[in-house]
Amino acid sequence: MKFSAEINVMPLKEILDPQGKAVTGSMKNMGLAEIQEVRIGKHISLVVDAENEAIAHEKVEEACKKLLANLIMESYEFTLKAL
Amino acid sequence: MKFSAEINVMPLKEILDPQGKAVTGSMKNMGLAEIQEVRIGKHISLVVDAENEAIAHEKVEEACKKLLANLIMESYEFTLKAL
Repeated sequence: MKFSAEINVMPLKEILDPQGKAVTGSMKNMGLAEIQEVRIGKHISLVVDAENEAIAHEKVEEACKKLLANLIMESYEFTLKAL
Repeated sequence: MKFSAEINVMPLKEILDPQGKAVTGSMKNMGLAEIQEVRIGKHISLVVDAENEAIAHEKVEEACKKLLANLIMESYEFTLKAL
C-alpha cells in the first residue's frame, strides 16, 4: 500500500529564527505590519510504500529522525494519508 | 482579532526539485528505499491581526504573493485559525 506523508519541520520555539525575523521586518516595510511572528521551516511531501499505516508511520519517523529534521534545532510533525 | 496562519510553499509539480531528488536518493542509501517522491518546500507560520477572517485571508494572500512565494516556480496554500 502507498501512503502520502506531509511533514512540517520547524525551528524549535526556544531557538531564534533569523529568516523568520527578517521576513517579519520586511512585512512592515511592505505595508503588512499586521503580520507578525513569522517562523520559517520546511514542508516535505513524500510517498511511502508499506504494508499498513503503522509501518508507514514508523518509516516516516525514521526518515525524519535520520535525515529530514535536525532534532537539536528543529521539531517535526506529520500526517499520513492512504493513496 | 488575531489569527494564526499555516502556509505551505511548494515547488510546482512541473518543476524539477533538485533538493527533493537528492533526499530521495539518500533515503535509498540509508535503507529507506520505501520512501519515494520526496518534494521539499517551505512551511511558514505567522500571526495576523485583522478585524475578521476575510480580511486576515486577504492579508495572508498578499504576503504570499508579494514575499513568501515565487509564483513562477512555487505554489502556496494556507489555513487560518482564530487565536
